[in-house]
Amino acid sequence: MPADRGQAAGPPTISEVAAEAGVGRATAARTLGGYGYVSPELRERVLAAAEKLGYRANALARSMSTGVSHTLGVIVADIGNPFFAGVVRGISDTSRARGFDTIVLSTYEDLDEEVAATNVLIDKRVDGVIIASAAVDRGEVAHIRAAMDRGIPVVLVDRAVASLDLDAVVIDNREAAREAVEMLIAAGHRRVGFVWGPPASEAPATRRGLLAAASRNLWTDGERLRGYLDALDDARIPFDPELVMVGRKTEERATQEVARMLALPDRITAVFCTETDAVTGALRALRAAGLSYPRDIALIGFDDSAWAAVMEPPLTMIEQPVHRLGAKAAEVLLDTLEGAEPRRERHTLRSRLIVRASVAPPPEA
Amino acid sequence: MPADRGQAAGPPTISEVAAEAGVGRATAARTLGGYGYVSPELRERVLAAAEKLGYRANALARSMSTGVSHTLGVIVADIGNPFFAGVVRGISDTSRARGFDTIVLSTYEDLDEEVAATNVLIDKRVDGVIIASAAVDRGEVAHIRAAMDRGIPVVLVDRAVASLDLDAVVIDNREAAREAVEMLIAAGHRRVGFVWGPPASEAPATRRGLLAAASRNLWTDGERLRGYLDALDDARIPFDPELVMVGRKTEERATQEVARMLALPDRITAVFCTETDAVTGALRALRAAGLSYPRDIALIGFDDSAWAAVMEPPLTMIEQPVHRLGAKAAEVLLDTLEGAEPRRERHTLRSRLIVRASVAPPPEA
Repeated sequence: MPADRGQAAGPPTISEVAAEAGVGRATAARTLGGYGYVSPELRERVLAAAEKLGYRANALARSMSTGVSHTLGVIVADIGNPFFAGVVRGISDTSRARGFDTIVLSTYEDLDEEVAATNVLIDKRVDGVIIASAAVDRGEVAHIRAAMDRGIPVVLVDRAVASLDLDAVVIDNREAAREAVEMLIAAGHRRVGFVWGPPASEAPATRRGLLAAASRNLWTDGERLRGYLDALDDARIPFDPELVMVGRKTEERATQEVARMLALPDRITAVFCTETDAVTGALRALRAAGLSYPRDIALIGFDDSAWAAVMEPPLTMIEQPVHRLGAKAAEVLLDTLEGAEPRRERHTLRSRLIVRASVAPPPEA
Repeated sequence: MPADRGQAAGPPTISEVAAEAGVGRATAARTLGGYGYVSPELRERVLAAAEKLGYRANALARSMSTGVSHTLGVIVADIGNPFFAGVVRGISDTSRARGFDTIVLSTYEDLDEEVAATNVLIDKRVDGVIIASAAVDRGEVAHIRAAMDRGIPVVLVDRAVASLDLDAVVIDNREAAREAVEMLIAAGHRRVGFVWGPPASEAPATRRGLLAAASRNLWTDGERLRGYLDALDDARIPFDPELVMVGRKTEERATQEVARMLALPDRITAVFCTETDAVTGALRALRAAGLSYPRDIALIGFDDSAWAAVMEPPLTMIEQPVHRLGAKAAEVLLDTLEGAEPRRERHTLRSRLIVRASVAPPPEA
């Protein structure tokens, strides 16, 4: 409990702390602001006085004098996605260890929300920003440039943005998808569904059209689609637009689309899911069709989780290094804040295909 | 793109916006600060000028003049828990609709982190705070009182705190747990495991000791334990300390503890899990023991999810109104900010037992 300060109104000031500690105001300010040199003995006295009076630095005043508020801002697409929750945990653990707090805003994949969130972080005077941006083209990155123009360093996480020359911490989504689809093909599958693809109103009829649609898509989604096509190409399996889900990305639509692919005359015998909701949506479709995996259909998905491991049979899944993605992004940002020259490079971490029991050869025709 | 402002350095000022719009500075300030009356026509001119010049209100300057920063701060135990992710979404949707941004800090169930998070929100001048606090005793709530003392209204969500007379938006955890355990007992079970209980080093031997331990526990956990005991009492089933997991709450320990309860001479035939990680931990133990639900053991858990519904067989789960919990907490807080008198009451929302297929009668002895 703060000591009684008699008639003093309002929170205690630096001057009051200085008087209580018996030091000069500048010494108290340096100690409480965390800048400049203060001898250990005086430092201790100031901190004891601050504690006694219940002084707590006003972060804003501190940031005005030192230029550092010791807060990182994080903008993610959807904090409800366990992937982003893990990334945020990685950012938070690393920042905390280096003396920084983390505040998080979620945009729920809406670019307007992302712009608003960036403005909040600028207004709240964060020292740096880590963002998983929904921006795709050059015309959608003005808010990120605005932060940079105000001297706030920005690091991208999970999603690279082609038009921004910034440090980006990502996984190789294309290679992760290629490896998974290759495993399905190696097991004998030639009819592999892809859930989910670009947000087009209908599936482009050509490979080229599909890639064009993918280039207007989130970077991660586009890369995963490219990995799927790479694996088909390597095996000389022609691309079939009927096997790619396009449009709104919801669990319900994944169920409908997998049901549709299962009802084709030449039905899918395997499905590759690029998100957790696509996996649970696909599993609902299998159940409704009375089909079991891996006997009737093989399945691989993003992202691994505790649930995927306890499914019966357990699911073969791609595990992203979620904590490490966040930790690395925080390290790059904090290094920049501490004076390192931004390298503006892509830091690519490894994902891992966790092989369990959801892949078997296709049923005999 | 902002218009060229010639030699003007730094971001545009309110005066520049006023000049561009051809209005007085006070009119521009009222419009951009969101306070006082401005005619629709002048308002439009100011906003057009602001957009043209690339003006963005400095939230801090705005909060100094209006006292409102239009930001809510949210502190949750673990943003990685889908329950809290849903609550945050509810807060965010409601706040956004009423013109407020939301910044989130996660404490990962560490009270020191919670204190630090509260200080960050005070320093960032949020208008109000919604918190799922890990505080249990009177001695642990100083940080919440500090926020209130600075005129920042606080609403509790998910967890009531006995020593704080504040609005709290919660579910009736005791009743939810009682209903679930009653369902297990009605199916014929008398050996029902409880995963997980209070953080004691060993299970208290008496019902009274257990309740004492529970009162030093998180409010939600304590209430769920009471509901379990209520259901046993109603059915005149004596409490057996061997059937209650105590100690650290991790998936791994849930697996170990359920394995232990399955190996008892008079083994459990049902298990009630109070968290998602307890459910997946229990399922791992069943698999390792070569047991299947509901044939060999019945299972009910908190919280329902997309995964629980696609398990084979699907799990009977308690569904909390996660979005509504957050939305209601935001409504109560925003009403207070807009001048309503805080009612300082407990707002109890309904949970729902989603009956699927993980409960059957116990196997014949």
